[in-house]
Amino acid sequence: MPSVSEIRNPWSATEFRARLYGLKGSYWDRHPFHRRLHEGELDKEHLRLWAANRWYYQCCLPRKDAAIIANCPVPEVRRQWLSRIVYHDGVDAQSGGAEKWLRLAEAVGLGRDEVVSERLVLPGVRFAVDAYTDFARRRPWLEAVASGLTELFSPGLLAHRLGRMREHYPWIGEDGFAYFTARLDVVAAEGSSLLDLVVEHAETHAQQLACVAALEFKCAVLQAILDSLDYHSGGSA
Amino acid sequence: MPSVSEIRNPWSATEFRARLYGLKGSYWDRHPFHRRLHEGELDKEHLRLWAANRWYYQCCLPRKDAAIIANCPVPEVRRQWLSRIVYHDGVDAQSGGAEKWLRLAEAVGLGRDEVVSERLVLPGVRFAVDAYTDFARRRPWLEAVASGLTELFSPGLLAHRLGRMREHYPWIGEDGFAYFTARLDVVAAEGSSLLDLVVEHAETHAQQLACVAALEFKCAVLQAILDSLDYHSGGSA
Repeated sequence: MPSVSEIRNPWSATEFRARLYGLKGSYWDRHPFHRRLHEGELDKEHLRLWAANRWYYQCCLPRKDAAIIANCPVPEVRRQWLSRIVYHDGVDAQSGGAEKWLRLAEAVGLGRDEVVSERLVLPGVRFAVDAYTDFARRRPWLEAVASGLTELFSPGLLAHRLGRMREHYPWIGEDGFAYFTARLDVVAAEGSSLLDLVVEHAETHAQQLACVAALEFKCAVLQAILDSLDYHSGGSA
Repeated sequence: MPSVSEIRNPWSATEFRARLYGLKGSYWDRHPFHRRLHEGELDKEHLRLWAANRWYYQCCLPRKDAAIIANCPVPEVRRQWLSRIVYHDGVDAQSGGAEKWLRLAEAVGLGRDEVVSERLVLPGVRFAVDAYTDFARRRPWLEAVASGLTELFSPGLLAHRLGRMREHYPWIGEDGFAYFTARLDVVAAEGSSLLDLVVEHAETHAQQLACVAALEFKCAVLQAILDSLDYHSGGSA
């Protein structure tokens, strides 16, 4: 017997979009750790911890994206999604988002080997990031795609972060910010095409609910990462 | 070509036991959250958060143990391991470790529904516990068994905890401590038979190393749980 959510009429596209945007308040911009980052309250040691832990998140992204492709039977979606793997991994070892993140890590004083060894990765960060990769492996591709909709919320935040970091941490060389400047160029377009994709493919009410739940899940992943970072850099909830 | 760790001679049983005991320092007894718990520094709200989150951990245990049985081709081990599922789930809904934990949750002022709904489970706790269940599903049964060796370290701590909690939180009714008193009766014997099992079945050096790594992993799971709890109850690292 189908469940109530399976037989209910789907939300209109407008209503569905509003439900997804309604989660903006769960997004990480208000987290104490980000507030401290943006207000210049972190010292070099804290910034290093942040960069080294966020590295682990960056590393998971191309694998998460490949898991989505692996689960997706729709060639157009697979073709569209492939560019995300290239974005992270680059077309060679000198390009790509991961490499740019390493440059940021170096700019805050970390050794490349120290970062890549994952020695500084906090247990709480590791388990949260692993849960995200695993979600993409196990859940239907549409839900895994929807979990990435935190991108919808980030363009304004990225620009804000870049400005506040240049202001409060002027000792970070401009090359260290290459990850953010490159990301700013693509994130608005990525977020909007992602939303179109989710709205188009979530045909039933049950699928729409699952997409909202996937975005909630992703917000919890980001919260757990930031909780760990804040706890280990002298912050409090 | 076999790796160096595969061709190296295994440690003697004595050396292997010493390596496992060597991780005692990574165990959670020194965590700030447990220090605060044992020194009477937590208020009722904090104890409720602790009980509700630890409930999620309790819930994973019988499933983790079943995953071990599911992966184990050795009938003697499966027969031995089965009692752990019964220990957690009980022979009926009124017995078992999970039920005793619910009584503790009630004794600190939580409603049973509130606990079972998992509404109070912190994201960081959820991801760490899920990582533990998942480890048992994916890794060889011997490693999953070895991850439970934190039991080796816990008999003294359990008795200590029970004493300090009775002293500092006298408002918790004695029925609330049934989980601990029942656990005290079995944990020493369980820990020692677990160690014998691991030592007997880890035949190669590579297996021994994997068992040590599994115990390290479990220590990281417990750390992530406690980090989250401490962060959300006013503690600091």
